[in-house]
Amino acid sequence: MPDMTADKLRRQIADLEQRLATIEATDAASAVSPLRPKYGFPDLPIVDGVQFSTASSGTKYKGRDDIMLATLSAGTTIAGVFTTSSTRAAPVLDCQKKLGGPSNDGAAIMVNAGNANAFTGSFGQVSVDVLASSVARALEISPERVFTSSTGVIGEPLDHDRIVAKIAELTQKLDPASARSAARAIMTTDTFAKGAAQTLTTATGQQIQIAGFAKGSGMIAPDMATMLVYVFTDARISQESLQTLVSERSQRTFNCITVDSDTSTSDTLLVCATGRSDVGNLDHGDPKVMNDFAVALEQVMLDLAHQVVRDGEGATKFITVAVAGAENDSDARLAAFAIANSPLVKTAVAGEDPNWGRIVMAVGKSGAAADRDRLTIKFGDILVAKNGWVAPSYQEQDGARYMKQEDIEISVDLGLGSGNATVWTCDFTKRYIEINADYRS
Amino acid sequence: MPDMTADKLRRQIADLEQRLATIEATDAASAVSPLRPKYGFPDLPIVDGVQFSTASSGTKYKGRDDIMLATLSAGTTIAGVFTTSSTRAAPVLDCQKKLGGPSNDGAAIMVNAGNANAFTGSFGQVSVDVLASSVARALEISPERVFTSSTGVIGEPLDHDRIVAKIAELTQKLDPASARSAARAIMTTDTFAKGAAQTLTTATGQQIQIAGFAKGSGMIAPDMATMLVYVFTDARISQESLQTLVSERSQRTFNCITVDSDTSTSDTLLVCATGRSDVGNLDHGDPKVMNDFAVALEQVMLDLAHQVVRDGEGATKFITVAVAGAENDSDARLAAFAIANSPLVKTAVAGEDPNWGRIVMAVGKSGAAADRDRLTIKFGDILVAKNGWVAPSYQEQDGARYMKQEDIEISVDLGLGSGNATVWTCDFTKRYIEINADYRS
Repeated sequence: MPDMTADKLRRQIADLEQRLATIEATDAASAVSPLRPKYGFPDLPIVDGVQFSTASSGTKYKGRDDIMLATLSAGTTIAGVFTTSSTRAAPVLDCQKKLGGPSNDGAAIMVNAGNANAFTGSFGQVSVDVLASSVARALEISPERVFTSSTGVIGEPLDHDRIVAKIAELTQKLDPASARSAARAIMTTDTFAKGAAQTLTTATGQQIQIAGFAKGSGMIAPDMATMLVYVFTDARISQESLQTLVSERSQRTFNCITVDSDTSTSDTLLVCATGRSDVGNLDHGDPKVMNDFAVALEQVMLDLAHQVVRDGEGATKFITVAVAGAENDSDARLAAFAIANSPLVKTAVAGEDPNWGRIVMAVGKSGAAADRDRLTIKFGDILVAKNGWVAPSYQEQDGARYMKQEDIEISVDLGLGSGNATVWTCDFTKRYIEINADYRS
Repeated sequence: MPDMTADKLRRQIADLEQRLATIEATDAASAVSPLRPKYGFPDLPIVDGVQFSTASSGTKYKGRDDIMLATLSAGTTIAGVFTTSSTRAAPVLDCQKKLGGPSNDGAAIMVNAGNANAFTGSFGQVSVDVLASSVARALEISPERVFTSSTGVIGEPLDHDRIVAKIAELTQKLDPASARSAARAIMTTDTFAKGAAQTLTTATGQQIQIAGFAKGSGMIAPDMATMLVYVFTDARISQESLQTLVSERSQRTFNCITVDSDTSTSDTLLVCATGRSDVGNLDHGDPKVMNDFAVALEQVMLDLAHQVVRDGEGATKFITVAVAGAENDSDARLAAFAIANSPLVKTAVAGEDPNWGRIVMAVGKSGAAADRDRLTIKFGDILVAKNGWVAPSYQEQDGARYMKQEDIEISVDLGLGSGNATVWTCDFTKRYIEINADYRS
């Protein structure tokens, strides 16, 4: 027999929750992730040769800009990394096709939020073509140099006419200092705009600027995420060198994050180098400058990748999972992702429970070579388990205190070899379920 | 600025939730899964040669039996399938070692709930040895014929003396009709006891009984789950034939279910054949009888596997995912599990949202060969998507109505070949998070 008091309380809770949901829906600002960077959106440097503008197409979101245009000066080289999904969206396939194109012409990136133009049959490519040719005509460049991205609901045709109608407005408002507005215009379930920048100064005092922004907070897993990332630099670098660099550094940044193990059909990273910096062509210059550029670019990519995790749907903890001592790097990655994607590990962190048994479980199921009796587990600097059992020095209260932190580091040493990998994720909360049981993505 | 009304509502909800949690904790019976079989625990037939008893060791659960002993008559053949985790628990390693042993002696299965004796270093095997030799002495059988399983908290040494102290009581209470109590004694986070049976009648009117029970509700994924399953039959069959049968049929039953994609370190399935039935040795008899036996055994295994999913932590929907038209069965399995394990698909089902876009996403990320434009998706009999786009006949309201059902069937045809696979899972609810952010497993 159901307890009548419990039933009554449940009804009261349901009633209050409904009222709360109404308030929250109309006050989205109060739902900003607690893990957002404390400094807010950074002041991004102007990147010579790049301009932005935004407008409101009214596709899905009302009362905010939902389309953004970035224009790139003639000579810009563009590299990209995309979702590996076998059901990827038309804009992704189109970007991939256009990457290797000639760079003497100017270029543009056109993004809309609210509709992903994914799984829309042959109509998907029609929308891409209409958008690209309309932008190309307005900017007097080739449609082959117009890259488009779409993010939002899957399976509904994109009402591209709404966007086309705004292109004239977009081209009139272009501004090199509008990166922040651009970052805001491409948001969907994001609770904060994500930006990052680095300025590289060479030994001779010349500078290269790198500035980027990203969106993404759910359907996030390697290869790559519901993630759109645009990075701009004034470096002069060939498309081939830039592509090599971007592909390689993605492996250690965007392809090392997971929110929910789900991979989007629309993930796109574009890195655009205008070549306007005083520093000469990196391909033919001092290898140290090329290397410094690579490091700075990776830093921007990593920063943005971490911000995507920090905006993970419902996240309250930022988790670093570092696996060492694996037979090889690939095994280390398997084990790290098994931990980072385990619902049981992620709910334990949400509950501030130092539940290292679930980490043992996740390593065990990962498929990586592991020996139970060589396993070492740490929370931060706290040695938790060693040689297949709880460490004699470990006190449950130390683990419990550690788990109250906002940033949690889980280190695992498999004790077998020198393979290692680090991946980043967030915890798994009731709020994730709320967001995803309601939002039609 | 936070909305003050929202804050007040949140405090009221938190207060009510706390009161509700107190009531629910003291009234666990009210938390029985809504997906439990409507018929309750079935009347299991007596299997000649098998007896059960249960007792309370007070290891973790108070006021209920938490240990169970099953005794098996001399000549019983035993087959098993176990977790493939590389960090599997001592009892699992011990069972695997003992499987091929001689069957002329009697045998026994000893199970405790509340402590998994997993990741307990060399102490783990000591506990197994103490339990096995104590049971062996009490029953006057070889310790090599005593199989033990432990389920519950990982990483804490098993206080085996508490269990040993109850062995005399257990041996005094042995009863062939106590399978239901046995099924209850091995439960951990389970909300109902799981039993299934089949009676096979041969053309000449002789019978074979098959009866089994299982526990499991979280950390459930193929290979195998936090799942303990014991099946008993009076069939006469060699260990080799039984093992072949059990391994093969596990692939289509227990290895086709997932609750949370997490794999336990303790999963154990034991199938015990006492040989007491009037039907002669199946190895040397009519192949049709052997085949009928295999079918009946698979039916019992499938029934128990489905019940484990139906008791999935926090589950409100039972989901069948059927993939056809894959290049091969292995690809079909990849796609089916990608759908069944996707947090986004599972939260959509929890929210009764016919969100087929997330199914497209899951197929895309699965790694199975797929062509977006050949994909067909159905909810039950409702054609949702065809040829890479929403079907012209599909009405959102039909999908929405279908999703209100308790049992949901998602069918995907990849349109490439004849590979197929069916897997079973449940939805992903806030209650799963609640259970796992609190329960120390």
